[in-house]
Amino acid sequence: MYQGNQTICFDNPPHILSHYAVVGKKEGEGPLRDLFDRIENDPYMGEDNWEKGESSFLKAAIEGALSKSETANADFIIAGDLLNQCTASGYGIRGMNCAFLGIYGACSTMAESLIVGSALVSGKSARRALCATSSHFCGAEKQFRLPLEYGGQRTPTAQWTVTGSGAVILGEDGGKVRITHATAGKITDMGVSDANNMGGAMAPAFIDTLEAHLAASGRSAGYYDAIFSGDLGFVGKDIAIELAHNDNIDLSRNYEDCGCLMFDSQTQDTHAGGSGCGCSASVLCSYILPRLESGKYKKVLFIATGALMSPVSSMQGESIPAIAHAVAFES
Amino acid sequence: MYQGNQTICFDNPPHILSHYAVVGKKEGEGPLRDLFDRIENDPYMGEDNWEKGESSFLKAAIEGALSKSETANADFIIAGDLLNQCTASGYGIRGMNCAFLGIYGACSTMAESLIVGSALVSGKSARRALCATSSHFCGAEKQFRLPLEYGGQRTPTAQWTVTGSGAVILGEDGGKVRITHATAGKITDMGVSDANNMGGAMAPAFIDTLEAHLAASGRSAGYYDAIFSGDLGFVGKDIAIELAHNDNIDLSRNYEDCGCLMFDSQTQDTHAGGSGCGCSASVLCSYILPRLESGKYKKVLFIATGALMSPVSSMQGESIPAIAHAVAFES
Repeated sequence: MYQGNQTICFDNPPHILSHYAVVGKKEGEGPLRDLFDRIENDPYMGEDNWEKGESSFLKAAIEGALSKSETANADFIIAGDLLNQCTASGYGIRGMNCAFLGIYGACSTMAESLIVGSALVSGKSARRALCATSSHFCGAEKQFRLPLEYGGQRTPTAQWTVTGSGAVILGEDGGKVRITHATAGKITDMGVSDANNMGGAMAPAFIDTLEAHLAASGRSAGYYDAIFSGDLGFVGKDIAIELAHNDNIDLSRNYEDCGCLMFDSQTQDTHAGGSGCGCSASVLCSYILPRLESGKYKKVLFIATGALMSPVSSMQGESIPAIAHAVAFES
Repeated sequence: MYQGNQTICFDNPPHILSHYAVVGKKEGEGPLRDLFDRIENDPYMGEDNWEKGESSFLKAAIEGALSKSETANADFIIAGDLLNQCTASGYGIRGMNCAFLGIYGACSTMAESLIVGSALVSGKSARRALCATSSHFCGAEKQFRLPLEYGGQRTPTAQWTVTGSGAVILGEDGGKVRITHATAGKITDMGVSDANNMGGAMAPAFIDTLEAHLAASGRSAGYYDAIFSGDLGFVGKDIAIELAHNDNIDLSRNYEDCGCLMFDSQTQDTHAGGSGCGCSASVLCSYILPRLESGKYKKVLFIATGALMSPVSSMQGESIPAIAHAVAFES
């Protein structure tokens, strides 16, 4: 049921049937190394370019989630990525013989796919929906920043795009964890135009969606055992805590950021932390959902954030529109 | 309810509350000139570049559909476009203060947005959903082909990207036309790698989705007063008729293509016809939906087609994955 304030309370809360996270070498050397389903050391995954490599990461996550589920199929795949025309998804899913709905929410894509998938399953439009996304450090640097071969200096606020993918299968029943609510984000643009400070651009969108969700659900931030932002990184996380504090929301105790969890910034030279669609997706599938399944968490709010600019819009002097989508899990 | 074969039969068929089509000068000189809500002669629509111009076309369509509807609001906007990172949508919808779900289905985007919007409304996740998309000839040529200033020759199979946008508001009740079924496409790739022959690449996807829809619904092609493909153009339309004939489906009497309807190829130098997300969207909103409302049509199947490649994948020698999404309307 639509609850107002951009928020859905699902009449038939979809259940998490399975999930799978695959990441690259650097991610596999980070603090979450023991939690991923698969660590793939070859960034090409046997292909001859990074774009096809990213498709292979996505494919591995989708096939992994399918193989871990009882039915091993889905009625719809809902996926997207950061590459122009979302080709990591288009080429990765080609050949899977499954209905496909492509989405684009930049780094908020995992939460957006869960919203669309949940709406389909809750509304009986699908029995099972597979939600997935991916990102790739090399492909993202090439497309959004500078060729890797150039060896450009990274600013302290820059984040490190995660090479990896996560996939979740939603179904009508089964599994210990379900999605009870979702809040879709509005576009927020506070005028930040520095494409090396995504956390700063996205933090206000995170707060906007968090506040809409709390207003619609009548909950406080303390209701949740944990609240996760997608990939604000260390810079954006601090801004988010301060913005929340200004609005009398206490995020000092139960708030974490997937971009901060992914790497050890002290030893891995990743500056402000991880980013990319694959960051929040792989942290969700390796760290958050298992903790819900084990009972360590009972209630979690997952808010993935995305920056909706392109290199063209940045070159045209535009500021960065940001968005955040929230999904509430319960076990 | 999910009916199998990629197909949803909506338990609560969403109603079309309003629709709006805005197109550019060349489209406004074509056969449908008297049917569009607005013809805008300035391709920049007052902005200083084509990308922002496209955002303005999208914004005009969304605001037009809202102003034509009784409630003048929507719970969610579902939109996407052809520009890298879907920036026509991101920047066009920024400032609208409405929850936004970005999608990407290349030229199939209008049908995909209607599928997602219908699932939200039918499943009570939204009271009203606004579905929209846009494309822009100049922005698409610059991004996918050659700079306009280069004055490159166009091949006979090349299509002309429509400058324009269409927007539809779906709601639980009201309006004479409703969406009864939707069939989401699978990715089809027959190995076509000529980016100047989109119709050839997309025709098999159109047939694949048409056949899935007919199998799931138990209908024949003759059940519909009219079947529309999105933008196969003259080349793709002929291929589609032949492919259908081979499978014993008769498309000789009630089948039209939005790309063929948009321009007069004899006088407008548009070669194989119109294309782009804005093509099927503006034909839907100006030609198809009014004919359903007037009773000229009672049952229509709208199948928008998309080619999911990017310039990078084409340069890497990849073939073109295609997809088609179908929506069934009844008045």
